Amino acid sequence: MKILITGGAGFIGSHLCDTLLDQNHNIVVIDNLILGKLENINHLFESERFKFIKEDLLNLGSLQQLFEEQSFEMVFHLAANSDIQKGGKDPEVDYNLTFNTTFNVLQCMKEFNVKKLFFASTSAIYGETSELLTEDFGPLQPVSNYGAGKLASEAFISAFSATYNIQTWITRFPNVVGERFTHGVIYDFIHKLKSNPEELIVLGNGEQNKPYLYVKDLVEGIIYVYNNSKEQFNVYNLGSYSRTKVKEIAQMVIEEMELNATIRYTGGDRGWIGDVPEFKYDLTKINRLGWEAKINSNDSVRIAIQKALGK
Amino acid sequence: MKILITGGAGFIGSHLCDTLLDQNHNIVVIDNLILGKLENINHLFESERFKFIKEDLLNLGSLQQLFEEQSFEMVFHLAANSDIQKGGKDPEVDYNLTFNTTFNVLQCMKEFNVKKLFFASTSAIYGETSELLTEDFGPLQPVSNYGAGKLASEAFISAFSATYNIQTWITRFPNVVGERFTHGVIYDFIHKLKSNPEELIVLGNGEQNKPYLYVKDLVEGIIYVYNNSKEQFNVYNLGSYSRTKVKEIAQMVIEEMELNATIRYTGGDRGWIGDVPEFKYDLTKINRLGWEAKINSNDSVRIAIQKALGK
Repeated sequence: MKILITGGAGFIGSHLCDTLLDQNHNIVVIDNLILGKLENINHLFESERFKFIKEDLLNLGSLQQLFEEQSFEMVFHLAANSDIQKGGKDPEVDYNLTFNTTFNVLQCMKEFNVKKLFFASTSAIYGETSELLTEDFGPLQPVSNYGAGKLASEAFISAFSATYNIQTWITRFPNVVGERFTHGVIYDFIHKLKSNPEELIVLGNGEQNKPYLYVKDLVEGIIYVYNNSKEQFNVYNLGSYSRTKVKEIAQMVIEEMELNATIRYTGGDRGWIGDVPEFKYDLTKINRLGWEAKINSNDSVRIAIQKALGK
Repeated sequence: MKILITGGAGFIGSHLCDTLLDQNHNIVVIDNLILGKLENINHLFESERFKFIKEDLLNLGSLQQLFEEQSFEMVFHLAANSDIQKGGKDPEVDYNLTFNTTFNVLQCMKEFNVKKLFFASTSAIYGETSELLTEDFGPLQPVSNYGAGKLASEAFISAFSATYNIQTWITRFPNVVGERFTHGVIYDFIHKLKSNPEELIVLGNGEQNKPYLYVKDLVEGIIYVYNNSKEQFNVYNLGSYSRTKVKEIAQMVIEEMELNATIRYTGGDRGWIGDVPEFKYDLTKINRLGWEAKINSNDSVRIAIQKALGK
C-alpha cells in the first residue's frame, strides 16, 4: 500500500516508518523538520520504498501537488505540535501545527479521493476528570490548546469521514516515551541534571500520576488497531493500566544517571497550566480487540531513561 | 455592561440585541452582513447605547482594533455559517465562518483581557445517535462540517477558559425558527410553494423529527442561563421536549398559505448528507436551573410560518 506519513521524521512517526517499511508498504514522509530530525530516518533512505519530502503541511499548494503526484492509498497523520506548555503560551502554535495541519490533510484527502486515514489523538481531549476514561466519555472539555487542537481535528475528521466516506482509525495516546523523544518529563529531568547534578527542581508536587507507554509498544498497538478494527470510524484508547508518578520518574532518572541529587518540588498539584495531573484509561475496548501493552508504565519509563542515556 | 455581539445583525443575533438593549446594556454589533441584514437592526440605530460595525471577523487586524477601542466586558459570539448543506459542499465554509471566527474572537479576548464569553453552539456537535442527549453525552462525532466547526470552537473555548480564565456560557441550540430567519425547512417550503403552488417536493421521507424552538423563547433561555448559572464553564442544552416531523411542517406551510398542493417525498431517511434525521435533548439541566420553553415545537413552527407570511 502507498502510504503518506505526516510528521514521519518525528519521535513516534519515525518508529511507525520502521514498522510499515518492514511490512513492505511504500512510504512517503512529509515533515518540516521543526520537531522531526533527519537522524531519525537516515537509516531508511537506502530503501527504494521510502521517500522523504521536507515540506510544511501548512503550505496547502505544495501538499496538493504531493497528493496529485503520488496517489496515496492511506494517510497516517501524526504531524502536530507536541509541546503542551508551548501551546499554552501561544495559542497559534496548536491552532496551526495541531489543527490546521489536520484540516489541510483532510482537504487534500477529499480532493484527491484518499479513503483511509489514521489519526494520532491524545488523552488531552478528555480534559481534567477523575473518572475512568472510556472512548465514549463526555463531556469533552480540554484544558490545553494542545487538547483543543486535537479535539478540533477529531471533530473535522468525524465530519469528513461521514460526509466524504473516509474510513478512519483514531488512537488516543497516553504519554509516550522511548528512543528519539524530543521533550517531556524524562527529557527535562536529564537535561536539568546535566546542568546541575546536585539538585533536581520538579514542577508541581511530584504526585502527578499518568500512564507512560513505550514507543515500540505504541506503534505495535497502532498497527494492531488498523489491522483488526474494521468499522467506518474506529476510535481506541491506547495505553496501559499501570501508571507512574512524576516523583518516581525523578528517582529513576537520578538512579540511572548514578547521581546523589536532592529533589526540590515547586509545589502545587500540576506542572503548568494546561497540565492534567492524573488520568486513567479504560482499556476494555482495545483489550477486547486483542491487544495489550507488553511493557508496563514503570518499565517503559526505565527503558526510555536508559536509551536516552545511551545505555 | 459593554457587550460585543458578533453576528448581531443575523436572525438570532438581532433578537438578542433587542433584549440586551432593553436591559440597558451598551451593545456593539459586528457583522459582515453576508447572512445578517441591516433591516434586522435598523430599529436599533436610534439608541445611543447601540453601535454597528460592518466588518468581517476573519479580518483579525480590524477585530483587534475594535477590541482596543471599545473595552468590552463580555462577548456574545453568534457569528457563524448557519447553512449545513452549504458547508457539506465546501468545507472551507464552516472552517472559516464557523470555526476561524471563533478562534479570532478568542485571540482578541485573550489579548484585550475580556473575561466573559457566551457561545452559540448546536445539537449538531452530538452527531447522529438515537440516545437522549445530555450535556455530558459522548462520544462527540459530528456528521456535518457545521457540527465539526462548532465542536472545534467549543474545544478551543474550553481550553481558553481554563488557560486564560475566561468565564463561559455555552448553550446548544436545536432548530430555531421565527421572524428574520434566512434559511431552513420552513423558509425552503414557502419559497418552493411560491414558485410552484401545485406541488411541494420534500427532501427525504418526511419522517425527520426534531425539536423546533421559537427564537424569542431561545433568546429568553440564553439570558436566563447567563443570569443564573455561575460556574466557570457553563454548558446547557436549550430546547423543548416536543418535536415536529418534516411532513407536519409541510402540511402546516400548505395550510397557512391556503393552498391545495400535493406533497412529493424524494425518499430516504434524511434531507441531505450531514442532516441528522432525529434527535432529542435531555433538558433536565436547564429545567432544574428554572427555565423551560413557553412555546412547544409545533406552535413554534406555526408561529414562524405565520410571521414569514406576514400574518
